[in-house]
Amino acid sequence: MLSLLDLRARIGDGRLTAEGAITQAREAIAAGDREVGAILRTLPPGPVPAEGPLAGIAVGVKDIIDTADLATEMGSAIYAGWRPRADAPVVARLRRLGAVPLAKTTTTAFAFLDPTPTRNPRNLAHTPGGSSAGSAAAVAAGLVPLALGTQTGGSVIRPAAFCGVVGVKPSFRLLPTVGVKTYSWALDTVGLFAARVADAARALALLAARPAIDLPAGDPGQPRIGVVRQDFCAPPAREALAALDRAAAAAERAGARVRDLALPPLFGEAFAVHPVIQDYEAAQALAWEYDTHRDALPPLLRAQLDAAREIPTEAYDSGRRVAHRARRSLKDVFAEDGVDVILTLAAPGPAPEGLASTGDARFNRLWTLMGVPCVTVPVETDANGLPLGVQVIARFGDDGRALAAARLIERALG
Amino acid sequence: MLSLLDLRARIGDGRLTAEGAITQAREAIAAGDREVGAILRTLPPGPVPAEGPLAGIAVGVKDIIDTADLATEMGSAIYAGWRPRADAPVVARLRRLGAVPLAKTTTTAFAFLDPTPTRNPRNLAHTPGGSSAGSAAAVAAGLVPLALGTQTGGSVIRPAAFCGVVGVKPSFRLLPTVGVKTYSWALDTVGLFAARVADAARALALLAARPAIDLPAGDPGQPRIGVVRQDFCAPPAREALAALDRAAAAAERAGARVRDLALPPLFGEAFAVHPVIQDYEAAQALAWEYDTHRDALPPLLRAQLDAAREIPTEAYDSGRRVAHRARRSLKDVFAEDGVDVILTLAAPGPAPEGLASTGDARFNRLWTLMGVPCVTVPVETDANGLPLGVQVIARFGDDGRALAAARLIERALG
Repeated sequence: MLSLLDLRARIGDGRLTAEGAITQAREAIAAGDREVGAILRTLPPGPVPAEGPLAGIAVGVKDIIDTADLATEMGSAIYAGWRPRADAPVVARLRRLGAVPLAKTTTTAFAFLDPTPTRNPRNLAHTPGGSSAGSAAAVAAGLVPLALGTQTGGSVIRPAAFCGVVGVKPSFRLLPTVGVKTYSWALDTVGLFAARVADAARALALLAARPAIDLPAGDPGQPRIGVVRQDFCAPPAREALAALDRAAAAAERAGARVRDLALPPLFGEAFAVHPVIQDYEAAQALAWEYDTHRDALPPLLRAQLDAAREIPTEAYDSGRRVAHRARRSLKDVFAEDGVDVILTLAAPGPAPEGLASTGDARFNRLWTLMGVPCVTVPVETDANGLPLGVQVIARFGDDGRALAAARLIERALG
Repeated sequence: MLSLLDLRARIGDGRLTAEGAITQAREAIAAGDREVGAILRTLPPGPVPAEGPLAGIAVGVKDIIDTADLATEMGSAIYAGWRPRADAPVVARLRRLGAVPLAKTTTTAFAFLDPTPTRNPRNLAHTPGGSSAGSAAAVAAGLVPLALGTQTGGSVIRPAAFCGVVGVKPSFRLLPTVGVKTYSWALDTVGLFAARVADAARALALLAARPAIDLPAGDPGQPRIGVVRQDFCAPPAREALAALDRAAAAAERAGARVRDLALPPLFGEAFAVHPVIQDYEAAQALAWEYDTHRDALPPLLRAQLDAAREIPTEAYDSGRRVAHRARRSLKDVFAEDGVDVILTLAAPGPAPEGLASTGDARFNRLWTLMGVPCVTVPVETDANGLPLGVQVIARFGDDGRALAAARLIERALG
């Protein structure tokens, strides 16, 4: 994989030029994407900014995020060849920082569950997950050092775990969702994929214009970690729990204070209302597509939107009240239980075999609904070469702390 | 003006067809818009839905709201001829209800302060206000019975007051802002213009799929009204205060319990941070336009975005915390002070003379930031034929109560 910080260091001391780094990314895509299928289209060769804290960084951009110079097709024939007028603000920000939004990456149609043809670079017989399939796979395959994705259920944290890369779903709206195709305006969150935690932290700090998010160079401290097993949903695979235990033990060895944490029943309720909020909003957000191109929608999404039309407004309103209460209660969990971060599963197990399913988001939905920062840390690789990851979660707005704890665990795991 | 309910009643009992109603709107635009300049473009003649609760209702759509069948130019040459791929969900919803989104209405560029050439139908020498200039003017001139606008500072409530129509800025995100050009994602709110309060209530209840928003047919009850004079900002014109007193007295005669209400100092703080939040987000939301077409931006917006780049992230984050505290405190104001609705000014005075300024949003900003439902009720007309209106405000999510109190005042004023 390509480390953003490593590339920047080599550019900084003259071993590499920004232009050379972008050329290398182009070559990596040309050579490495054939069997993975993460990249949809690449910018024609052109001038490369030499200045800026992300100069020389090639970025993969999920194809539901608007780019003025590359088509944005939402993973759907309905948008074949569609060229937005403007860059999404997060893309404009990348350019201001000197990065090159080089390629559009595959997305499931409208970021829902119908799979892409993209393969998992760790084991081509398995899914990379979704919906940010191409962004996770492109980083895992070493095609680009940084990629943008989005998460409404588990579309960043889950594919990052499946592909063995670091994924960050920041605090809600830390990165603007303007110019990003909406599925659910209460949930959609722009996130990042990178090789290592420090790479992701640097990218997020720059994109969000909040230097404090970047990891402190020195001692990460002794974070108090609460391990959550999410017993409000169906149990995970044995090896996923083993990876969680291994990450917790590593953190403890590194000086963290680790203990089990049980969430109050309200969080089970919040978990259950996530799909109600998501789908009620999707039925509105995709109303034009549904009303005018229903037959062109892929089967899982079409069926979901068929059902979503029947969700009563009262169920949505009451779901939003549950979510509001749970968000406030989560503050108390952190404060009263005295934990700095939560450590939990990133996915129920390794990437499923085949490309028919992008996997299950049940270990992600609650945290997307809570709007809190989440980081995937790769832990180990199973007998099939498939990665298992864990998820580090902090309070809303405390993205730097989630990343610092994630780095501590990453280091402790070696 | 055209009453939505009146048109619907005539269609319901066969005195008018839906198609006939749309033809009348076309004729009204052809005859009446020449001197007002509210309409940018109109749908070519085509089939008119005969079914649906809004069949026969021609709607004006502010030109920052995406329409698949009509250009959407954001009030800016940068988007000349721009055709979005999809309808905004609020437009798709209008179609589902049987309405015809017939015409795009003028907007200031990107819904900021640079004026449009639109004139106030009540007195052509005056501004109709902004940024939803064309939507307010189109309803005031009797061109359409319903129009969509948006408010980030005071872009619905103020032009409604200036033009003597009913304006509704609903609870934040009651109507989705998807497919609406973003200025500030924390503030942008889709709103409505109609002839009378009952027209607006019917339209909002249908668009939001919440029948309870529509006014109860019977007794509006005896709402407890708190009159707020907003002494945290510069004082209004004498005639605006007189209109407020007149509306309060009318409400009292109609059985409402009316008393003065002073807001805690926190609301002055919240008022002061509104522009910080708005402009910090605008600098991101319009980054592509600023970075690639700065010279094509109109002067007020260009200067605002120049300045907005310098807003420190810390000021934005701290402003959001103030807003959050004020929103919670506002719940207490309603609960502890025992008021059902707040009655306050809609604008500092009548529409300014000339077209150089769209007027001042200082009596609107706080309420947009609070996310609470606001309704403009026209009160009287001054010696220049210019209307003066007041604003009725309820708790977040209590849009029906704001509309019920607004109707009581409208009736009491005769």
